[in-house]
Amino acid sequence: MENIQSMSYSQQYQSVRQHSIDICQPLQKEDFVVQPILDVSPPKWHLAHTTWFFETFILKPNMPTYVEFNPAYHFIFNSYYETMGPRVRRINRGALSRPTVDEIMAYRNHVDDAVSLFLSDPINEELIELLEIGMNHEQQHQELMIYDIKYILGNNPLFPVYKEQNVDDREYPFIQNEAIIIPEGIYEIGKGNESFGFDNEKKKHKIYLEKYAIDAQLITNEAYLQFILTGGYKDFRYWHSDAWEWLKTNDIQAPLYWHLVNDEWHEYTLSGLHPLILNRPVCHISFYEASAFAAWAGMRLPTEEEWEIASDKFNWGQRWEWTESAYLPYPGFKKAEGAIGEYNGKFMVNQMVLRGASVATPAGHSRKTYRNFFQAEIRHPFSGIRLAQTI
Amino acid sequence: MENIQSMSYSQQYQSVRQHSIDICQPLQKEDFVVQPILDVSPPKWHLAHTTWFFETFILKPNMPTYVEFNPAYHFIFNSYYETMGPRVRRINRGALSRPTVDEIMAYRNHVDDAVSLFLSDPINEELIELLEIGMNHEQQHQELMIYDIKYILGNNPLFPVYKEQNVDDREYPFIQNEAIIIPEGIYEIGKGNESFGFDNEKKKHKIYLEKYAIDAQLITNEAYLQFILTGGYKDFRYWHSDAWEWLKTNDIQAPLYWHLVNDEWHEYTLSGLHPLILNRPVCHISFYEASAFAAWAGMRLPTEEEWEIASDKFNWGQRWEWTESAYLPYPGFKKAEGAIGEYNGKFMVNQMVLRGASVATPAGHSRKTYRNFFQAEIRHPFSGIRLAQTI
Amino acid sequence: MENIQSMSYSQQYQSVRQHSIDICQPLQKEDFVVQPILDVSPPKWHLAHTTWFFETFILKPNMPTYVEFNPAYHFIFNSYYETMGPRVRRINRGALSRPTVDEIMAYRNHVDDAVSLFLSDPINEELIELLEIGMNHEQQHQELMIYDIKYILGNNPLFPVYKEQNVDDREYPFIQNEAIIIPEGIYEIGKGNESFGFDNEKKKHKIYLEKYAIDAQLITNEAYLQFILTGGYKDFRYWHSDAWEWLKTNDIQAPLYWHLVNDEWHEYTLSGLHPLILNRPVCHISFYEASAFAAWAGMRLPTEEEWEIASDKFNWGQRWEWTESAYLPYPGFKKAEGAIGEYNGKFMVNQMVLRGASVATPAGHSRKTYRNFFQAEIRHPFSGIRLAQTI
Amino acid sequence: MENIQSMSYSQQYQSVRQHSIDICQPLQKEDFVVQPILDVSPPKWHLAHTTWFFETFILKPNMPTYVEFNPAYHFIFNSYYETMGPRVRRINRGALSRPTVDEIMAYRNHVDDAVSLFLSDPINEELIELLEIGMNHEQQHQELMIYDIKYILGNNPLFPVYKEQNVDDREYPFIQNEAIIIPEGIYEIGKGNESFGFDNEKKKHKIYLEKYAIDAQLITNEAYLQFILTGGYKDFRYWHSDAWEWLKTNDIQAPLYWHLVNDEWHEYTLSGLHPLILNRPVCHISFYEASAFAAWAGMRLPTEEEWEIASDKFNWGQRWEWTESAYLPYPGFKKAEGAIGEYNGKFMVNQMVLRGASVATPAGHSRKTYRNFFQAEIRHPFSGIRLAQTI
Repeated sequence: MENIQSMSYSQQYQSVRQHSIDICQPLQKEDFVVQPILDVSPPKWHLAHTTWFFETFILKPNMPTYVEFNPAYHFIFNSYYETMGPRVRRINRGALSRPTVDEIMAYRNHVDDAVSLFLSDPINEELIELLEIGMNHEQQHQELMIYDIKYILGNNPLFPVYKEQNVDDREYPFIQNEAIIIPEGIYEIGKGNESFGFDNEKKKHKIYLEKYAIDAQLITNEAYLQFILTGGYKDFRYWHSDAWEWLKTNDIQAPLYWHLVNDEWHEYTLSGLHPLILNRPVCHISFYEASAFAAWAGMRLPTEEEWEIASDKFNWGQRWEWTESAYLPYPGFKKAEGAIGEYNGKFMVNQMVLRGASVATPAGHSRKTYRNFFQAEIRHPFSGIRLAQTI
Repeated sequence: MENIQSMSYSQQYQSVRQHSIDICQPLQKEDFVVQPILDVSPPKWHLAHTTWFFETFILKPNMPTYVEFNPAYHFIFNSYYETMGPRVRRINRGALSRPTVDEIMAYRNHVDDAVSLFLSDPINEELIELLEIGMNHEQQHQELMIYDIKYILGNNPLFPVYKEQNVDDREYPFIQNEAIIIPEGIYEIGKGNESFGFDNEKKKHKIYLEKYAIDAQLITNEAYLQFILTGGYKDFRYWHSDAWEWLKTNDIQAPLYWHLVNDEWHEYTLSGLHPLILNRPVCHISFYEASAFAAWAGMRLPTEEEWEIASDKFNWGQRWEWTESAYLPYPGFKKAEGAIGEYNGKFMVNQMVLRGASVATPAGHSRKTYRNFFQAEIRHPFSGIRLAQTI
Repeated sequence: MENIQSMSYSQQYQSVRQHSIDICQPLQKEDFVVQPILDVSPPKWHLAHTTWFFETFILKPNMPTYVEFNPAYHFIFNSYYETMGPRVRRINRGALSRPTVDEIMAYRNHVDDAVSLFLSDPINEELIELLEIGMNHEQQHQELMIYDIKYILGNNPLFPVYKEQNVDDREYPFIQNEAIIIPEGIYEIGKGNESFGFDNEKKKHKIYLEKYAIDAQLITNEAYLQFILTGGYKDFRYWHSDAWEWLKTNDIQAPLYWHLVNDEWHEYTLSGLHPLILNRPVCHISFYEASAFAAWAGMRLPTEEEWEIASDKFNWGQRWEWTESAYLPYPGFKKAEGAIGEYNGKFMVNQMVLRGASVATPAGHSRKTYRNFFQAEIRHPFSGIRLAQTI
Repeated sequence: MENIQSMSYSQQYQSVRQHSIDICQPLQKEDFVVQPILDVSPPKWHLAHTTWFFETFILKPNMPTYVEFNPAYHFIFNSYYETMGPRVRRINRGALSRPTVDEIMAYRNHVDDAVSLFLSDPINEELIELLEIGMNHEQQHQELMIYDIKYILGNNPLFPVYKEQNVDDREYPFIQNEAIIIPEGIYEIGKGNESFGFDNEKKKHKIYLEKYAIDAQLITNEAYLQFILTGGYKDFRYWHSDAWEWLKTNDIQAPLYWHLVNDEWHEYTLSGLHPLILNRPVCHISFYEASAFAAWAGMRLPTEEEWEIASDKFNWGQRWEWTESAYLPYPGFKKAEGAIGEYNGKFMVNQMVLRGASVATPAGHSRKTYRNFFQAEIRHPFSGIRLAQTI
């Protein structure tokens, strides 16, 4: 999928769609069904919802010969698009055994055949943009599917293996950390129109930064373990007020997927439960934990602007990196008209920005201007920590 | 299974175990996994938990050569037996995609082979009693499986069919209702020791009843519809205080599975969504609704003692029938020692007694002394109404 | 108030009304306002609600010259009489600083003057019955006021004293316990019409009892402490399933008002926090605890029928005594028409019966047929334990 | 209090302390006690907590002769300072009838006498800073007390009057709105060290702003009413996703304190319930509502930086004004050591910034760099709307 830009739209479409199937290949049918927590959707729901997106926004309004696969699916697989009518409440997704996996695969084939036929004729600019949104939307769900599959398997008392060779267990060569210094001044951030980007990362605009330092390396399990061992989870001084409530209410004592087995820390990865590997970047932590760790270390998280400006000077792409920035509109941001306008803008409150990408991000779906966002307590993404400080 | 009493224990065991498999035959794998509400367990959980019961109480303590199928299953499939150690919290059963259906079928085969081998030698009285409890326990879960399968399918927006010919759609010939009069006096109720019975229905004991009348027939959908149409769900005078809160909080306006489609009442049954059949006995109502209906009709529900004494004079077995009796110990009731003692006694508070049996009850698992029990708001059992009055 | 039966109705009324004021005499104005938990109402609410009862059911329908004190009070001080229209939700009572205590005292005086005037002429039987219900209703609230005042003061970190000489600290002479044996047979329980009684305790009716033994004495703090010290709160075998959930959710380890101070058990009483007095009857326990204690002791709680039949043979009146009986209608029970019909009947589900009376019960407000009732987890009444067993 | 800067510290202290008493002067004792919702504290709690602050941070560590008024108060009146030990959970403040208002007034007098004595000798810089924090802290609570008193009285079904002449009913002369244009460029915001400021508004730092327009006037009730009448609360397109959930869950249809009486909109103010005055600035709205209104008007809220830069060009001080900025640390922000460090920093997540001041703000407690903050759904502050747009 590396050269996706050089493919025809039809080839790009097929390539993206196939990747969703590839991700699910190691699953048992039962794994496609469950929703253990509100934020984790059943894999079969992802497969159907991404299909519904193409059916609803491209085929039904633009292809007169298209025959809807099943009108009831519209109700079931709408996620949060209020414009498109009532939808199954998110908490109930895991209660739906039907449609079955086989029926959803048939739905995918039905829609894919129609899209292929539709793309055999030239399409206009507006449709190209919708198609690109649809493919990028599916890539976002591919990343979510890996989060959700990991959550489903990793919270099962049997700790089943997803597959032996997987994104989670990539090698991380040891590199000495160092502080990258960025001088005070006016900078420019944000996405221009030279290639695809979401509305929330546009447009390019000027900002003013004070002088700061940012780490060249991510925080490792080893450093994070020190935070735990020196009482980091017991000392309220490092934590936001909301974080302290969250931590006490949920009895949080370590990152998600860490387990103390016979007094030794283990980590569940997609290849099973293993002793903690100290020199890997810490993963699956909340903003609350990232921020508390930074306080413990006497530093802070970078803002998203600081991150973007410095991003050419360090390696990124292993962990989504929490920033100290809330998810808010850029100057001049306007929501698009219609359902597509619900894509990003309506989430711009009560969430924090993550920058970079992760080992679970599909190839070709990352760029330095990309703005990911989650609530401060969320831990199932492949999230990590990079530290900064004003100097 | 009609002549189960004349079979050998090994044959009885196989017959009971096969019936669980038969119930699941129409299901898709996905249907085995979900838990849409706390009170509805995934079918694969029922299949495994009933198997765990035989493994835990018969094989492991009594068969030295038995090799446990998977020690982790002990944790996963214990339901509420605190004596047996920690267990998966009930609300999380629907989050477990593993073990898969195939793995659970292998677990059943493993245990069934061991039990068959174990039963090839004579067993003592105590083991016969445990075996009988195990088989009756599985029969109870067979009935629950039908409730749960109906809930899983009947709350899916696609309203899938379980199978066309099923217990839900039995014919009910019209019979004129009449009042059966029982004179005042001393009566005897409860189960003796001549055949299997649960501890909660024992022992035989005397009671004193005032003169009363009890209906020969169950309340029909037609009569219940009158209750709705005359404002029964809007008039607090018919309802207990707790019932009125429940009704308002949950916006209850009709029995479970009733749907108003284009101004016509429909009912979901195991063969799909159909227009309401008026002369069937009303089904899937809570104690609160049964009691409110009785108040609307100017009558009341019978006590469990009244029901049992009159039960030889009317047909029963189509609907579990709510009584005005709370689930409490009979005189002289003692909990058994050990985990088996947790079977019934610890539920003897905050529940109401239902008497009779339902179309979903396995053959051979009903008798007039049987005491079923649920919380007053529960509606997924095949529950109905028979009225009584003091005269 | 001892000779209340020989007083005129007007004198009885004044005597009852004065007692409510007497109970509140030691309070600060601030104490009248708070509602620390749903089940505890502000004392000023009790003072006003009991007044509202006379205004609504006696003065407004029957005294043409009566001028309503403040029409808004009707909304504020209705408790649960749905017939009488909307009301302030119970949870919000503690949010109402107005009307003030002084305003409520003026409201009481206004209504008392009108009732006195009204009673200066003869009244008919129906009005006598309403007046008796109103006075008994106020007496019930007098008892509740003592519960609620104790809860308000006893849960304050300052542990303020209500008054030094109070009902809580009555002397309990030591008397040897013994088992009272009641033979099997037909008995009669329930209230006849010779004097005032609530609808729920009527009518006299026959019951059949098996032979049983019942303790002559209440369980003491000393015995209950043994239950605690031998691990009673840690051993699920003694507890109902709902009880075990309640105990773990709320971290219950001792009766309400017991505090472990410097490793010594103390008890808050209306005269403050004191070391536990071992030979007093245990107080402020839930049905769950009473039942668990009985299981630990190898006995059980009596049924309400057993209690009533044996009640002439032992002293009672210090603690409301939990029974093993759910609160259900007696044979032939019919709710009265109109709002008075809401008094008792609509609570006849999900509650347990207590028998006897307590040190907080107003003089003249107890009789052996009286049925008190609370949910199984309630602990703020002056509730205790008497054991029984089938022999 | 205008010339507070020219007073001695002792005079300043007495002036600030007296103002708290003045605010409570119209209250009945009952009004001091209640906590109708989590975010509204009892007035007597404010009176005591502000006193506790001086006792804990100034007297106890610095005045050897000081005798603590009552050691138990430390537990009761700590608000959220984890450093200072356990505290009464915020939800339980309204359950505490004791200490009484009179006792708290005695506590205030005790502490005030000691502080006056303490201030009769010169104090060092660090103590001056603590004293200033304590006085500013009390001023913040004075503003909160007015919010809370309004909430307590305004949610009482009797709609009692606080006093006839009050801050709520100030005259607002009509002034034509106009757009103030601010050119693109580098600006400087934040508080320098020339006078008292909180840590969260420091330090002065450069920012870059694009060209924008900001309204000279606040949004009026009249404009807001148009938003309601044209269906603003029914159209999800104007609302954040979280906002839409909040609005549906809580059935929000208008600003707090607006009531539709006989089809006419009324507003509760501190002088009672009156018909809505159209040309007043809209008040008591959440960030969610402010943001939805802006979307409906085709504009947006200003950022806090935009607000501060333009603030010299418009009148402000009537309503706290919601901004589009999340409450986050300024560049170089460091929490102070110890309990004082808990003052602001730990709230820097999940809250939005409000700028300006309100009619309830004490004189001398406002400046253009002041950063107020609340969760997005909070409505009991005197909050309003000023619109902006990028041009």
